This record gives sequence, C-alpha cells and structure tokens, in this order.
Amino acid sequence: MPKFTKIDAHWMSIALKLARNGRFSTMPNPNVGCVIVDKNGNLIGQGYHQKAGQGHAEVNALLDAGFIPHQHNAMRQRDPLFQPVTSGATAYVTLEPCSHTGKTPPCAIALIEAQIARVVIASVDSNPEVMNKGIALLQDAGIQVDTGLMGAEAQKLNTAFNFRMTYNKPWVIVKLATSIDGKTALQDGQSKWITGPKSRVNVQLERACSCAILSGADTVIADNPKLNVRIDELPEFASSLFQQRAAQPVRVIIDGQNRLHNNYQIFQDEHKVMVFNAQHNPLLTANNIEQIQVALVDPKGNQTTQPRQYLDLQAIMHVLAEKQINRVWTETGAALSGALLSVNLVNELIVYQAPMLLGSNARSAVNIGQLTSLRQAIKTEFEEVTQVGSDLKIRLLIKS
Amino acid sequence: MPKFTKIDAHWMSIALKLARNGRFSTMPNPNVGCVIVDKNGNLIGQGYHQKAGQGHAEVNALLDAGFIPHQHNAMRQRDPLFQPVTSGATAYVTLEPCSHTGKTPPCAIALIEAQIARVVIASVDSNPEVMNKGIALLQDAGIQVDTGLMGAEAQKLNTAFNFRMTYNKPWVIVKLATSIDGKTALQDGQSKWITGPKSRVNVQLERACSCAILSGADTVIADNPKLNVRIDELPEFASSLFQQRAAQPVRVIIDGQNRLHNNYQIFQDEHKVMVFNAQHNPLLTANNIEQIQVALVDPKGNQTTQPRQYLDLQAIMHVLAEKQINRVWTETGAALSGALLSVNLVNELIVYQAPMLLGSNARSAVNIGQLTSLRQAIKTEFEEVTQVGSDLKIRLLIKS
Repeated sequence: MPKFTKIDAHWMSIALKLARNGRFSTMPNPNVGCVIVDKNGNLIGQGYHQKAGQGHAEVNALLDAGFIPHQHNAMRQRDPLFQPVTSGATAYVTLEPCSHTGKTPPCAIALIEAQIARVVIASVDSNPEVMNKGIALLQDAGIQVDTGLMGAEAQKLNTAFNFRMTYNKPWVIVKLATSIDGKTALQDGQSKWITGPKSRVNVQLERACSCAILSGADTVIADNPKLNVRIDELPEFASSLFQQRAAQPVRVIIDGQNRLHNNYQIFQDEHKVMVFNAQHNPLLTANNIEQIQVALVDPKGNQTTQPRQYLDLQAIMHVLAEKQINRVWTETGAALSGALLSVNLVNELIVYQAPMLLGSNARSAVNIGQLTSLRQAIKTEFEEVTQVGSDLKIRLLIKS
Repeated sequence: MPKFTKIDAHWMSIALKLARNGRFSTMPNPNVGCVIVDKNGNLIGQGYHQKAGQGHAEVNALLDAGFIPHQHNAMRQRDPLFQPVTSGATAYVTLEPCSHTGKTPPCAIALIEAQIARVVIASVDSNPEVMNKGIALLQDAGIQVDTGLMGAEAQKLNTAFNFRMTYNKPWVIVKLATSIDGKTALQDGQSKWITGPKSRVNVQLERACSCAILSGADTVIADNPKLNVRIDELPEFASSLFQQRAAQPVRVIIDGQNRLHNNYQIFQDEHKVMVFNAQHNPLLTANNIEQIQVALVDPKGNQTTQPRQYLDLQAIMHVLAEKQINRVWTETGAALSGALLSVNLVNELIVYQAPMLLGSNARSAVNIGQLTSLRQAIKTEFEEVTQVGSDLKIRLLIKS
C-alpha cells in the first residue's frame, strides 16, 4: 500500500464530502467526489456526481478547473502547443474512474487528456465488469495511480451500491420505531407517536437516500400511508440536494392476497408503485402501478401451493436488483419485517428507540416465530448509536 | 456564584476522583474526596472517605498533609508557637464539611484547627439537619468558603444518598437485560445468555456499589440465584475497593405468598437477606434472614384483603430508607419490575441491550398492564449510552 501524506488525506476528505452531496440523487449510480490539485498544491477543481446520465465527478471537477474533457484533440488541432490547465495536477477521486463508455465517455480518458500526473483513488469499483480497468487505463498512459486512501470511508458511502454489484441483491434496511422495551404500538394499534418529531424527520432523510420504500399490504390497509419523501419536512440542505433527483423512491408493496385497490393514498400520485403479488390484481389500474408476479412459497422459501404461503421474497429482491435498486428502506409491520429477517434478506436494522416503556401487553416489533434455542436468535452488531431529539437511533448490521 | 480559576477546577477534579474511590464502600455515607493545597500551590494532602465509622475525607487529607486533627489544643499546650503545616492552605472538598459529632468529630472544626484559609466546596450537604451548618461554622472562624465548583458532578457522585436524604426513600434502579427488540428470554424461559460476558461483569460492578439487591420470590424460585457480588469477577481496581466495604449488599426479597424456604442459595451464606412478606414465614429460619411484614394492597397501592393483592411496595421502600439503604439494584422478572414502575418507585432504568432479535413470541421485559393510551406510557429520558463488549448499556432516568 502506498504511503499517503497528510496533504493527500486532506484532499481526499474533501472529495468524500463532495461525494456525499450526491447521496439523495445519484441512484442507481454510486456517490463519487473528485478534487483536482495543481503542481503547486492549489485546489483548482472540484466536483461530484449528481445524477445518473449527467457528468461523473471527475468530469465535473475537470470542468470546474477549466478543462473541457473530450475536446482535447480539437484543442490540439487548433493549437499544437495547447497545454491543459490541469497538466501535471493530481486528481483525488473517491471511486476508481470508469473505463467504459456509458451515458458519458470514460473518465479515465478524460483524466489522461487533462494530462493529470497522479490519480489518488479511495476505493476500486465494485462492479466486476469495470473493476481495475480504469486503473489499468491510467497506468498505461503513464499516470501514477495510488489506491486505498480512506478506502473504508469510501466503501461506506456506497454500501448499498457495492452490495448490489457483488450479490445482485439490494441492500435492505428494516426500520423499527419502538419503545425502550421493544414495543411498536399499544395492543389496540395506537402508535402515534412513540418516537419524537426529530426521529420522524430523520426517517424522511433515510427515505430520501433510498431507491425504494418497501411495505406490505397490511400496513397500507391499516395506515393508508403515502410512503413518499415529504420534501418540505426535510432539512434545507437535504431538500435542495433531493431535488436534483430524478424521481421519488419507488414504493414497493407486497400483497400476496390481492387485498389492495386503487383508493389507497400511494396510488393517488404520479410516483411509481411496484406491487408484487401472486396473480395479477385487476382492481389495481391506477397509472402509477406496475404489478409483478412472483411464486408462492412456504415459510422456509420453498415453492408450494399449500396454505401458509408467502410471496417469494428472494425472487422479489432479485427483481428489485435487476431494476437497479440499491437501497431498500422497509417500513412495515412485525410480520413482514420478521419474514424478511427470517429468510436472511435484511442487511441492516435501524431502530428509533423512544425513552418510554409500553409494557408486555403492547405489540412487539418483529415476528420471527417461536424460537426454541437462543442459537436461533437473529444476530446483529451495533454499528452506530446517535441521539435524535429525545430518541436513540441505533444502527445494527445483521450478521449472516 | 464565586469565580473559580482553572487551578481551582484542577484540584476539585482530583478531589472528585478521590471521592469515587469510595463508591463501593462508604454506604450509608456519601462519597467524599478532599485535596489540600498550600499557600504556594503545592498539593500537600489528599484523602477520601472509605467506610462509615472511619475517617472523613477532610480528616484523611489533613492526616496525609501531616496535621493530626483534634489534637490541636494539645499541640498548642506543648508549644505555644505551634503552626500547623496546613496553615494558610486551601482545602478542596466535594461535599460540605460536617458540623456535627457523629462517629467522628466535626470536620469543620478540624479544618479550623488546621488553620485552613479557604475551603472550596463542590456541593452542600443534602441532609436537611446538616445543610449549610458546616459552611457557617467555617465562615464564623474567618475562613473564606466558596461553594458550587463542579456541583453537578459532585451531586451525581451521591445521587442515591441525596435522594434518600431528601425523600426518605431509596434510589431504585431496575436492571433489564434484553435483546434489541426488548425480550428478556425465550417463551420457555431460556435467557442464558442474551447479554455478553462484559455486561455480566458490569452487572457485578453495579451490584458492588449498591446498598441492596432487590428481587422477588418468583426469581429466587425460577433461577435460585446468589444475588451477591462475586469479588473474583470484578475488575482488579473494583475488587480491592470493594473489599474496604463492611459487608455484601443486603439481599431484599419480596415474597407476598410465603413461597420461600431455607434451601435456596441466598440463604446458604452468612450475608444478610431481608425477606418482606405479609405474615411471618415459619420455614425461613436460616441465620442470615430478617423477616419484615408489610400490608397487602391492591394494584393501585390501597390496603385490601381482596384477591390480586400485593405487598405494599411503598412501605417496603420506607423500611429500606429507615435502614439507611441509599441505592437499590433490582434484578427481577417482568411482574415485579412492572409493579415497581407502576407505583412510581423506580428512579432509574439500566438496560443491557444485546445485538440480537428474539421476536414477538419471546418474553417481554416489564409488565405494566394494558395501556389504553400512549399517555399512560412510563416516560423516561436517556441519561447515558455506552458500549459494553458487544452490548449497549443504556441508562435512563424515569420522569415522575
């Protein structure tokens, strides 16, 4: 591993901050930030990827420095002595520059044309088709490439994207809002509000950086929620970043028994709803609905036509991955949350824990059936605990 | 409020650290630390209160400085020009020096005889019979007294003592060990081990600084625990401090139906057990048992002879306060924990939360009956969250 200086770390941390500006809007693409520093150590360009189909971070940073990528040959024709302003500079980029022509030409080529002398990369691309190819292109052009600076932070920026690239499944987060004794509602269903207003704003932020919001027909019927991002409830920084985004998160509703109809609130707006069911539901005719059929399986995930059948959650996740959904934010009841956990499809749990006790008669958070041994418990590890208003926000990673 | 310097804060923080050394052993007395600094700003004496009946912090610090309290007149007789080494010094003490002759002569007098010029006090005594009297004594002798430096920290050292002095009730802590979804055991009762080994050591530490360990007959019958401090499981610093203590915490067992007999483990050692019941239990004859009868009440706390009767928990707490028990550490089941919470006798909740899910079929942590409105929830506030091994330790204060 190359030795990095404190100056390298300084610039990369700025690139990471820039990258984070894209967290509400780059999906299905990853978040990437880039900083360009000239030979004298002066910052001359910075940029980040804002939205799929628009400029990558490197291109935006080069433009910010005054170099117009992919026009280098034309410039040279006009002036054989043309020297880009970026000549000899160092580019700090949080993700390996791309080597393929997608919606935009390869960033690696742009960096080569810009006569960048050194490229410092935080993490390599997790897309197996691209991994290390950008680095090879740069090195073949004689550019010094140093990788791995703040690699862990850069990976965390794109946990969900990296997971989908590696496993062809989305990164699934289950959100719970509970009392300190793990209850989500009173026995009669009352749950407004267990957690405080700051937690509810925080949920809007989590929805806003998700590709999809997953729920079940039970929840739609019981609460008739909108399951959208309420832009006016976001903090100002987030609402302006969110508005770069092409669309609201897709609502994904699991309805194995065709209990839904057009009149629920999620079907009243123009934003997309994907409904998974076993058979086409003729009542769902609203314009924003896409219905997708998957098989029925038994609680262990095997196909079946017996009673106690569920939609095949594994199949649903594969469909979502194919639709380039990286991050699935799940807000649903104890049954579906428990089912997802039981078949090992949950990667992360976010628990908003309110400082109150509701007692043993109140409703529990997840139904995973009756365990006969503590070895059957679903194991997790604490990743982060923060105070959000009067509540705790506890992030846990599920151990597989 | 007097202006304190950074130097004052430095010395008081040392006095606070010294005071904390007494947390396993001063009961029923408060924790107190003292530092003596001479005219030139040099530390000349330090001490803390170790054990009831032994030297107070001020006396120990004066001795450490070379001044023998309460022998001043004798010294003066031998040598009329006698000047104590502490003459003109400043004493930093975390609690107001006592003014009354208890098991030892008053500390205020010792400080006066030592010709201390200035006394800096963190917090005044919460004992209404003593409050401000020590300060008055010092001031009458011409000593400069400055109070309130780091008062909040000093109060926290003695939360339980102060609470008993003010309300004539012990400070009651309920300990819960739960999964992240609030479960304490599987449906069949399995609970070994939900929390990890570091949490279990931490429980030993909490027991070790408590005056009493409270539980119910249910727990004694189900688990046959020892409910003692296992000195060999304490970290080294704590085990040596704990051994200054006169005795193990008193075990307090609530047995409204006389279900206990001599054969349980708690009755097999020489350490005291207080059993609260409605009528004397002739089966409990072990030497370490004190039986105390209190009235039966209905679930709301009114005296009754009807079925669904409980021992009067308020009365039990008053008995414990009379017995100078400051801090009650409760390890019991959902029923008694819930009953204590329901009648507002719990001050603090400590939840060891393990990173696992046990699901809705597992056992819940506290039974507080069926709530019909979220307004009936028991409200708390997060006081402190720490990671203990792989678990979280969450301290909450109950809002009254």
